[in-house]
Amino acid sequence: MLSRPDDDDPRLGDVSEGRILQAILSRTSRAAHALIGPGDDAAVLAAPSGSVVATTDTLVHGPDFRLAWSTGYDLGWKAAAVNLADVAAMGARPTALLVALAVPRDLRLSFVERLADGFREACDALAPGCAVIGGDLTVSDVLTIAVTALGDLEGRAPVTRSGARPGDVVAVAGELGLAAHGLAVLFGRFRDGDVPVAVDVTTLAPGESAALSAQLRPSPPIGLGAVAAMAGATAMMDISDGLALDARRMAAASGVTIALDGASLGATPDRALAGGEDHALLATFAEDALPPGFRMIGRVRSREEHDLLCDDLPVDVSGWDPYRDWDAVGG
Amino acid sequence: MLSRPDDDDPRLGDVSEGRILQAILSRTSRAAHALIGPGDDAAVLAAPSGSVVATTDTLVHGPDFRLAWSTGYDLGWKAAAVNLADVAAMGARPTALLVALAVPRDLRLSFVERLADGFREACDALAPGCAVIGGDLTVSDVLTIAVTALGDLEGRAPVTRSGARPGDVVAVAGELGLAAHGLAVLFGRFRDGDVPVAVDVTTLAPGESAALSAQLRPSPPIGLGAVAAMAGATAMMDISDGLALDARRMAAASGVTIALDGASLGATPDRALAGGEDHALLATFAEDALPPGFRMIGRVRSREEHDLLCDDLPVDVSGWDPYRDWDAVGG
Repeated sequence: MLSRPDDDDPRLGDVSEGRILQAILSRTSRAAHALIGPGDDAAVLAAPSGSVVATTDTLVHGPDFRLAWSTGYDLGWKAAAVNLADVAAMGARPTALLVALAVPRDLRLSFVERLADGFREACDALAPGCAVIGGDLTVSDVLTIAVTALGDLEGRAPVTRSGARPGDVVAVAGELGLAAHGLAVLFGRFRDGDVPVAVDVTTLAPGESAALSAQLRPSPPIGLGAVAAMAGATAMMDISDGLALDARRMAAASGVTIALDGASLGATPDRALAGGEDHALLATFAEDALPPGFRMIGRVRSREEHDLLCDDLPVDVSGWDPYRDWDAVGG
Repeated sequence: MLSRPDDDDPRLGDVSEGRILQAILSRTSRAAHALIGPGDDAAVLAAPSGSVVATTDTLVHGPDFRLAWSTGYDLGWKAAAVNLADVAAMGARPTALLVALAVPRDLRLSFVERLADGFREACDALAPGCAVIGGDLTVSDVLTIAVTALGDLEGRAPVTRSGARPGDVVAVAGELGLAAHGLAVLFGRFRDGDVPVAVDVTTLAPGESAALSAQLRPSPPIGLGAVAAMAGATAMMDISDGLALDARRMAAASGVTIALDGASLGATPDRALAGGEDHALLATFAEDALPPGFRMIGRVRSREEHDLLCDDLPVDVSGWDPYRDWDAVGG
C-alpha cells in the first residue's frame, strides 16, 4: 500500500492536524454548487431548486471493510459511491459530500492522501460537479468514515420508494449480486484462519476480478437516478441490502406485490436476489416509460398474500443485519 | 445510567436493526423544513433561500467523551449542540441534523433511546424547528457519533471568519472557559488512576456544577447567530478550540490584528483564552452595531506584528490538537 519510505510518510499521530487537513484539501476539487467551501465553520452550497436532498452512510473498519483488502483509495471511492447512490435514488443530482473521518494515530499520512484521491475521483467519475465541501477529522482506535451526501432535484419531484402502482414495470440499472460475489471471494480465499490477508490478483479466476472491483470500488449508475426521475419513475431506491430485501421494502412502502422474472436476474438468480452492497437502482415505471440504462426484471401487482414473488413463488431471503451478522475479526 | 432491569433493556447485539431504528425514530420530532423525513434513501429538506449551510462534527469515545462521565442523553445533546453552533456561526438558522451512529454491540437499547432524547431536546431548546431528518446505524467497537447539521440563511449573506475590518468591535456571545473548567474538574477529581469514574455531584464545589454542565451538555447561543448576521456582523465564528486560538484564526483569515481587553474576559482571563469546547460565538461588528446578547471584548486593528493581543501583549496559547494531546484511557 505504501510507496514511500517511512520518513517521508509519517504516522498521523506524529504530524499536526493542520498538515493532515492540508493534505486532504490539496486533493479536493471545488464543488460546482459550492458558494463557500471548506475552511470556515460551515460550507454553503447553492440549492437552486429550493430544496436539498441529504443522506448519510458510514464505513467502519471491521463490519464494513478490512484494511488488508481495501486501500485508502478504495475506501474513499466506496464511501463516496454508496452515498452518491442514495442521492441518485431520490432522482437527484449529487452536489456535495461532507466527510467525518475518525482515524487511528498509527495510520500513515499517505493513506489519508489516497483516501482523498478516492473521494475526488469517484465524484469526478460518477457525479461530475460533486465534491467534498466540508469535513471533520478526529482520532479513534477504529477507522471510521462517515459521509453525508447532498443533492439537488433540479426542479423535479423526489422519487420515493412508496409510489409503485399495479401494472408498473419493475426495472433495475446496475449490477445485481456482483459485489456479494466479490465479498465471498474475499472471505473464501483471502483469509488466514479468521485474519484477512492481501488479495493475490494472480490467483483470480475469470470474473472474480470484476466481482472484487464491484465490492471494493463500486460504480453504481449515479447519473441514471436523474434519468429515471425525468422518465417519470413512480418509485425508486438504492439496492444496498440485496434485491430481495430491498424489493420487499419497496413493495411494503407502496402497498403492492412485486413479481420478479427469474430469467431476467442473470446466470445466478439466487445471488442476484441475496446480493448486498450492489447499489444498483431499483425503479418502477409506467408500461411504456422505461428509460435507457434500465432493464425490466418484473411487474408490480396489486397487493397479494406475499409482497415479493419470483417466477410466482414467494421469495424467502433474509438480508444483512449488522447487529446479528457481524463477527469481529482482525485485519 | 440504567433505570430498567436488563431483560427490558437488551444489548444492541441482541435486537434487530429495525427495533433500534424504531426506538430512535419514535423519539424524533419532525423538522419544520422537512419535505421527506427519515425512512427513504435520503431526506429532502426545504431550502427556501436557495442555498444550504452544511457542517459536520464527530464525537468519538475516548478523545471526545467518556461513558463514565456522559449519559446517552448528554451525548445526544452535545453532539447536536456543537453542530448547531457551527451553523449559527455562519449567520444561519439550523434546519436539520443527520446522525451517523456507530455503536458497540454490548451497549444497551436504553442508551440509544436517551441519545435520541438528547438530540430532540437540544434541538427543541437551542434551535426550534430543527430536528433529525436522517441517519445511519452501524456496529463499531468504538462508540462514534458523526453529525451533519444543515441550515438556512433566510436570505442573508453568510458571515465568514474573514470579514473583520480595522475599527470593528470584537464581541462574544456565550461562555468563555467554562467548558474547559468542567473538563478540568472531570480529569482532576473523577478518575481512579487513569480510569474515569462516575461524577459524585455531592462533592461539587459552588460553580463546578455549571462548569460540568457546560462541558457535558453545552447550551451555545444558537439563535444569536442569525441575530448577529441581521445586525451586520462583519465576521463570525464558533469558539471551539479556545478564544486565543480561534481569535487568531479569525485575525489571520481577515488579515488583521485582534486586540482583546483582558478585563472583559471575566475572573480567569487565562482560562477564557485557553478554553476549548465553549461553542460561544465570536463576532465583529461596526462600532455602533453591537446587538443584544453580545458583549464587547476588544477591537480589530490593522495588521501588526502579532495577530492577537491581550492588553497590548502578544498572546501565546496553543490550542487543542487531538493528534498530539490525546492519550487513550479507559472509560
